Amino acid sequence: MPDQTTDRPNTPLLDQINRPADLKALSNAQLAQVASELRSETISAVSVTGGHLGAGLGVVELTVALHAVFDTPRDKLIWDVSHQCYPHKILTERRDRIRTLRTKDGLSGFTKRSESPYDPFGAAHSSTSISAALGFSVARDLGGVVPEGNGDAIAVIGDGSMSAGMAFEAMNNAGHLGKRLFVVLNDNEMSIAPPVGALSSYLSRLYAEEPFQELKAAAKGAVSLLPEPFREGAKRAKDMLKGMAVGGTLFESLGFSYLGPIDGHDLDQLLPVLRTLKARATGPVLIHVLTKKGKGYAPAEAARDKGHATAKFDVVTGKQKKTPSNAPSYTGVFGDELVKHAAKDDKICAVTAAMPDGTGLNLFAERYPSRCFDVGIAEQHGVTFAAALAAGGMKPFCAMYSTFLQRGYDQVVHDVAIQRLPVRFAIDRAGLVGADGATHAGSYDIGFMTNLPGMVVMAAADEAELVHMVATAAAHNDGPIAFRYPRGEGEGVEMPDEPHLLEIGKGRMIQTGSRVALLSFGTRLGEVRKAAEALSAKGITPTIADARFAKPLDREMILDLAANHEALITIEEGAVGGFGSHVAQLLADEGVFDAGLKYRSMVLPDIFIDQASPEDMYRVAGMDAAQIEAKVLDVLGVATIGEKRA
Amino acid sequence: MPDQTTDRPNTPLLDQINRPADLKALSNAQLAQVASELRSETISAVSVTGGHLGAGLGVVELTVALHAVFDTPRDKLIWDVSHQCYPHKILTERRDRIRTLRTKDGLSGFTKRSESPYDPFGAAHSSTSISAALGFSVARDLGGVVPEGNGDAIAVIGDGSMSAGMAFEAMNNAGHLGKRLFVVLNDNEMSIAPPVGALSSYLSRLYAEEPFQELKAAAKGAVSLLPEPFREGAKRAKDMLKGMAVGGTLFESLGFSYLGPIDGHDLDQLLPVLRTLKARATGPVLIHVLTKKGKGYAPAEAARDKGHATAKFDVVTGKQKKTPSNAPSYTGVFGDELVKHAAKDDKICAVTAAMPDGTGLNLFAERYPSRCFDVGIAEQHGVTFAAALAAGGMKPFCAMYSTFLQRGYDQVVHDVAIQRLPVRFAIDRAGLVGADGATHAGSYDIGFMTNLPGMVVMAAADEAELVHMVATAAAHNDGPIAFRYPRGEGEGVEMPDEPHLLEIGKGRMIQTGSRVALLSFGTRLGEVRKAAEALSAKGITPTIADARFAKPLDREMILDLAANHEALITIEEGAVGGFGSHVAQLLADEGVFDAGLKYRSMVLPDIFIDQASPEDMYRVAGMDAAQIEAKVLDVLGVATIGEKRA
Repeated sequence: MPDQTTDRPNTPLLDQINRPADLKALSNAQLAQVASELRSETISAVSVTGGHLGAGLGVVELTVALHAVFDTPRDKLIWDVSHQCYPHKILTERRDRIRTLRTKDGLSGFTKRSESPYDPFGAAHSSTSISAALGFSVARDLGGVVPEGNGDAIAVIGDGSMSAGMAFEAMNNAGHLGKRLFVVLNDNEMSIAPPVGALSSYLSRLYAEEPFQELKAAAKGAVSLLPEPFREGAKRAKDMLKGMAVGGTLFESLGFSYLGPIDGHDLDQLLPVLRTLKARATGPVLIHVLTKKGKGYAPAEAARDKGHATAKFDVVTGKQKKTPSNAPSYTGVFGDELVKHAAKDDKICAVTAAMPDGTGLNLFAERYPSRCFDVGIAEQHGVTFAAALAAGGMKPFCAMYSTFLQRGYDQVVHDVAIQRLPVRFAIDRAGLVGADGATHAGSYDIGFMTNLPGMVVMAAADEAELVHMVATAAAHNDGPIAFRYPRGEGEGVEMPDEPHLLEIGKGRMIQTGSRVALLSFGTRLGEVRKAAEALSAKGITPTIADARFAKPLDREMILDLAANHEALITIEEGAVGGFGSHVAQLLADEGVFDAGLKYRSMVLPDIFIDQASPEDMYRVAGMDAAQIEAKVLDVLGVATIGEKRA
Repeated sequence: MPDQTTDRPNTPLLDQINRPADLKALSNAQLAQVASELRSETISAVSVTGGHLGAGLGVVELTVALHAVFDTPRDKLIWDVSHQCYPHKILTERRDRIRTLRTKDGLSGFTKRSESPYDPFGAAHSSTSISAALGFSVARDLGGVVPEGNGDAIAVIGDGSMSAGMAFEAMNNAGHLGKRLFVVLNDNEMSIAPPVGALSSYLSRLYAEEPFQELKAAAKGAVSLLPEPFREGAKRAKDMLKGMAVGGTLFESLGFSYLGPIDGHDLDQLLPVLRTLKARATGPVLIHVLTKKGKGYAPAEAARDKGHATAKFDVVTGKQKKTPSNAPSYTGVFGDELVKHAAKDDKICAVTAAMPDGTGLNLFAERYPSRCFDVGIAEQHGVTFAAALAAGGMKPFCAMYSTFLQRGYDQVVHDVAIQRLPVRFAIDRAGLVGADGATHAGSYDIGFMTNLPGMVVMAAADEAELVHMVATAAAHNDGPIAFRYPRGEGEGVEMPDEPHLLEIGKGRMIQTGSRVALLSFGTRLGEVRKAAEALSAKGITPTIADARFAKPLDREMILDLAANHEALITIEEGAVGGFGSHVAQLLADEGVFDAGLKYRSMVLPDIFIDQASPEDMYRVAGMDAAQIEAKVLDVLGVATIGEKRA
């Protein structure tokens, strides 16, 4: 549990707000005071839990304004990605638990339907909010019935998230349907990394260019949507008209009324605009709001990532309280190795979807900027772009988190696998990921990659193995290849002086024992070793093997293990349908089950596992050393003291 | 094989064109003659093979112009979706095989890398072409080496495909990178269905609105990209400037130079524009071309779908030579049943991604237009939109082809499954699909749906079962549910008077036999019955069961089958990792393999299967009645006459 003794900020007005409806009675000035206190409370909370700080600080005023103007939870407020939802959670009856954010049994770091009626649509992956808001708007008009009622739908989406194709698809559909719907474009010129893409440049021009045609907005009727003070010709109104005149066209092209840009930290702009829109809007409206990520907390504002994600920290100094790490992270090892290969081979290039830091490609981008492509939040495009780079004679590494690769799955099938193009998939955050919880779990990639003809699928058992796998992928130019590795630190193993090329489809024996063979795919190998030690103390020395490849399988090794052991147990950090299923298919095809084999496949269980430490999550999954040991004892029919066999 | 005796059109000039380079020597007038002959040849070819006719006819002049101006295959010409590629194939050394289109061992109905160097990037799913073209452009600039050389990259993309998020992602990235790149927007105001979405309306306005600012284009430097005759102030140049002035902004916002709209059937417009762009363009250019789908063939122009896809037909009358069908199609049964349920329940609604006809929702759309949503080619948005409809109290059916649902996979995981929202997935074209080949195979949905916690996954064994499954899905309001069914006609079984609700997770026994149990999931049940009949004649009467559910499994039935038979064989129309893998996981967990069970899982093999009839494709897959019979005999150790056991 986080430290609950940290000094709390003084928040007299916020203390009186028990639910969003309480904001309705307050003056604009009081709401500004609430915002100020909410900012302090957010900083204080994240200082004890760690988490996403910068995004929440950027939307403090917006959060207050939206809840003050709209009627949540009847009105559906949908935060895109939702890592900016901490102030929202504080205001929506969860302040008492805000210092449990992202911890086991605590509040989720994202919005979550099961957590609160104020979270009508959970999120964690980007760019879903407009689709969701449109769905609620349509459901309202069709008479859909939900306990809280169906009011307005408001999506709050960042400029980074807006670059994803899914957001465009939703805008295109919403503009066509013409339903009343609010999209707040929270433009902080910053997603997780600095923004890329033409849309980003376009947005910048919206408030940089000189106006050329002030009457255009008026002609389009947008003025009727403006709040009274703005229509009276104040300077602010003029600024707003300028923005509309210059820049609205892209959104207007898609059928939205465009309003902005307005200062997202100024409640005197936000409140009247939102109130007027609530009273008058009839169709889809895009409200372009400018904010600063990390706003109001100097250490965050000064940071390169604007305090995007932080460990626990000291509120006064902003200094993070990180535990010193013992081993290099898998992500770092991947990044370092890729740079080494790129130095020797100028055909190696890399693709990331808005995650240069998260995937370890930042170093590659610094050294070889012309060969590193951040395509924005655009996994579909990113995968096909990589496929064409390969078709054009390059050697692309497509580095994505397992959970985000789901966004590009069709492209992996259609553009990479069917065409047998040598794209190297570096699949980070494989398996359970900790504080980000179920939405970020990399549970399915083993299954959805191994079922593709011609795909090679590896998993690194430790950081030294990852070194070899990067080299193997770099050298493999005859079709696609993927390698997966988890979030976090390596095992602390000795690193090789030189990588060596792994033989495709060959596993390795770790130790030879008897009775039971433990066949591991991925980083559960460490727990398998621990289990084996404990078993040895009980007189059972298991054979241990590291499969390295889920595809192609090491048929010879697996059939040998099956032939020479009473029991064979596979272990992988993924759902059923992956490595173990391919092993079972092989064993069945070869008739190994005909005469009997104690075969078991330890996979992630059929539940979504909530946030906790990865260790705790794997315990929930039944896959730690003690549970592997218990599985072996159970399979071999060895009852342990004080336990009864199931 | 198609009929090769049909009268061939007279094509004297086309007959002299052996490769695209031969077009270079021709005058514009001669090229127009080639185009005319190419149109006749395309119509003639499709009349004997069936296939996608309208799209190809719409791009005859464009095909000639692109090959006459650019240097294929060094320049990479990438057809989006590529069902419009038949004229391209005729011009690129495949005319001799054009009457084998879409048949076994014949030409693919799509572009295909393995078929020709003139197909640098295959396609079949939409909206990949800009990503691909950008990849080739970047590879060229980075020195990527391929046998044909790396020249210019040209994407040809329809207005329907342009509405997909992936195309927007690619435009956004291309505009940012600023590489020389050509995107031809083939605007025929028609994808497969009439276009939907705000983008479509926007494109229409591009050539409907009055110009308001002719100098704008000049100021932006676009005039320098215009061919000489246009700069001389001819009327056409003025029209073009009008187009640019009014409408270019959306594309210009994304960093493209915009040129158009121009008449895509007028080589006197196409050729000079393309020649000038080839000579002068430095960054990304979008060329907006207006065409008519089905152009030049009266029966296609007159058809509602503009001759999108056709059976073999009589060239003179345009009358299609369809074999009369014996049973209703699965698609039709789904559509009819949904309408019946919608009549009784006003919360039922439907979502399609640009496939109202293909998914059978056209009838629903006619009867209940306010409850039917065609979101455009936008599977990502479509799935999340459906999730929010469910969250807002509606009962959405999300009807998509298995292969296209891959596009929305992350949304199925993140927005539907994690939130346990009752979205009903009607998964059409499950399994192998015939003439559309490997790119359209629905091979993976069983795996990628069954591994999601809380998902219910059914497969219909016949059209009567589908009736029950639609009803079961309509009634299931406690989490997501999916049901899959194949392309084509049903089995001709008697249809039930009333649908009945299936018990979730319960299979059904078809016949009780001994020694071997055949456990079918989906429409292989017909072949299983045939196999069982043949086996009965040999003294082996198998037990047959229809699993109905791959998730949750009917544990009791499966364990009973395993306990009471020497052998258990599962059969499904999907890849490993699906139904059989879940059965194996259950059997392993329950220790059934410990004492021995002849277990086999018949799944689609680990290859991409090229186009043929579905029957032929399943024979290649090893899953017809004779092959099921052989599998049983092999597993039971019964050698058949003239065969040796493997």
